[in-house]
Amino acid sequence: MIKLKPLADYIVVEPIQKDNQTASGLYLPEKDDKKAGQGKVLAIGPGRKNDQGELVPMQLMVGQIVVFRKYAPDDVELSASEKYMLLKESDVMAIVE
Amino acid sequence: MIKLKPLADYIVVEPIQKDNQTASGLYLPEKDDKKAGQGKVLAIGPGRKNDQGELVPMQLMVGQIVVFRKYAPDDVELSASEKYMLLKESDVMAIVE
Amino acid sequence: MIKLKPLADYIVVEPIQKDNQTASGLYLPEKDDKKAGQGKVLAIGPGRKNDQGELVPMQLMVGQIVVFRKYAPDDVELSASEKYMLLKESDVMAIVE
Amino acid sequence: MIKLKPLADYIVVEPIQKDNQTASGLYLPEKDDKKAGQGKVLAIGPGRKNDQGELVPMQLMVGQIVVFRKYAPDDVELSASEKYMLLKESDVMAIVE
Amino acid sequence: MIKLKPLADYIVVEPIQKDNQTASGLYLPEKDDKKAGQGKVLAIGPGRKNDQGELVPMQLMVGQIVVFRKYAPDDVELSASEKYMLLKESDVMAIVE
Amino acid sequence: MIKLKPLADYIVVEPIQKDNQTASGLYLPEKDDKKAGQGKVLAIGPGRKNDQGELVPMQLMVGQIVVFRKYAPDDVELSASEKYMLLKESDVMAIVE
Amino acid sequence: MIKLKPLADYIVVEPIQKDNQTASGLYLPEKDDKKAGQGKVLAIGPGRKNDQGELVPMQLMVGQIVVFRKYAPDDVELSASEKYMLLKESDVMAIVE
Repeated sequence: MIKLKPLADYIVVEPIQKDNQTASGLYLPEKDDKKAGQGKVLAIGPGRKNDQGELVPMQLMVGQIVVFRKYAPDDVELSASEKYMLLKESDVMAIVE
Repeated sequence: MIKLKPLADYIVVEPIQKDNQTASGLYLPEKDDKKAGQGKVLAIGPGRKNDQGELVPMQLMVGQIVVFRKYAPDDVELSASEKYMLLKESDVMAIVE
Repeated sequence: MIKLKPLADYIVVEPIQKDNQTASGLYLPEKDDKKAGQGKVLAIGPGRKNDQGELVPMQLMVGQIVVFRKYAPDDVELSASEKYMLLKESDVMAIVE
Repeated sequence: MIKLKPLADYIVVEPIQKDNQTASGLYLPEKDDKKAGQGKVLAIGPGRKNDQGELVPMQLMVGQIVVFRKYAPDDVELSASEKYMLLKESDVMAIVE
Repeated sequence: MIKLKPLADYIVVEPIQKDNQTASGLYLPEKDDKKAGQGKVLAIGPGRKNDQGELVPMQLMVGQIVVFRKYAPDDVELSASEKYMLLKESDVMAIVE
Repeated sequence: MIKLKPLADYIVVEPIQKDNQTASGLYLPEKDDKKAGQGKVLAIGPGRKNDQGELVPMQLMVGQIVVFRKYAPDDVELSASEKYMLLKESDVMAIVE
Repeated sequence: MIKLKPLADYIVVEPIQKDNQTASGLYLPEKDDKKAGQGKVLAIGPGRKNDQGELVPMQLMVGQIVVFRKYAPDDVELSASEKYMLLKESDVMAIVE
């Protein structure tokens, strides 16, 4: 079970890596650095407080596959096998159904 | 049917590519990087919440051809044949009728 | 008739090109990149909504010649003979009478 | 009479050029690009609307000599003999009496 | 006992250093400068005042292991053996449980 | 008497020049470009209007020696012997008593 | 006694210099430019006015040792022996007890 408990409107995402390699193993440089990231939601925060101090509930749920702005997440590595991404719910643009 | 469900005021757009190639296949560099993008709306989000927590309804509809700020969208590729753009409704400047 | 229908407080402008060429055809580099742009208003949006969700009516009218901040517009090309500019009314500084 | 009618809180100014040339015609580079601009007010807009939609009246009057932030204005050239500057009243720092 | 008393919503963190060196001592350059920082909370401020002048209580507690945006903290060195990080609670993204 | 009448919360300051030259006339480059500027207040504006349209009275008085953020002022030269600085009262950090 | 009287929420700080030199006098370049500054509070302003025009009282007191964001202060030199720093109270992160 994941040991990261996100605060406010942060979510923990397990990245779905899009391979930039060809079958023969050559690295193909990404043509467009505006390409969105994709990942699976592993944990969600309790929600952020608005300017009136009221809790804004989260829209996302654990288990959803989400599309997010590529450079939004920060990487966190708890161990060699525990590599996650942390980002705000507001950086998620869409859900893959 | 499209599998992307946009959040808030995001929309999914299928780009209409403007060819920068001549008939003989030469690449012509874009003279003006302020040239707007064009695309067809495939899906729209439910709308964003304003500062009072009220839903702001969307103006756009699925099927419209829209003109948007060129560098506003993020590209998302679900598979080799499913390449879309995600952008906010507020980055759409006009509808082509 | 123009096929572009601007949203919110966007306007469509047909640029009035200021020639940077001498009579003999030499290109003269623009000395001042703060030189304002000029154009004719072809279409206007319905107006933007303010923070209270009320419509702010537009000041400009179709047919006026306007002066705008040079780098404000985005270019949109519907066909080789349909080249327009899209900009916000708030980027218009003056009307030429 | 000037044909430019400024919008909102824009003003039209005729620049008072400070010569960067010596008597013998040598160009002397400006030491300080923070040097303010000076000009004569030729036309003033009706004033901007505040967040409550109320008109904020203009302070300046046609005919005043004003000092403004050097890089605030945009240049507009209606013809070879009609070269003006457009800037916002809020970029004017002082009046020369 | 720590001699640093944070103000407002600042917290004092003792960094948990992730080694960028191989066993043989070679320095391995960090591939991703978006990698989050980790540390142990040593002291917390009283909380920041909101726009109404009310105290916003802190969520974190002394002793927690936190994940924060890598470039958020400022380093402070009281002596050779007293090296800490100062950052705002809002730069903490998650707690490690 | 000074001919510059500042608007809003602008003030006119006569700079007190700090010499960067040694006694023998060598120019010593400034080590720290965060060094504050100093000057004597020659004129003050009537004060700025706040968001409610109310006048915020000025704190400074003509004749005071003030310390200000070095790059805040714009230079204005009415004649070879009339060189002043214009800055906002909010860029003044302290008074020298 | 110090002759600088800070305005609003500015404070005057006497820097505590951290030596970047080795015992033999070699200059050691600072590895981390995010290292916080330290200093002793010599004078404090009356406090800033909030958006409602009410005075926000200062938290700091003369004589405290404070830790601040390194690049927040502006240096002011009244004479060769009177070198101070001016910064806002909000740039102070912690007190050293």
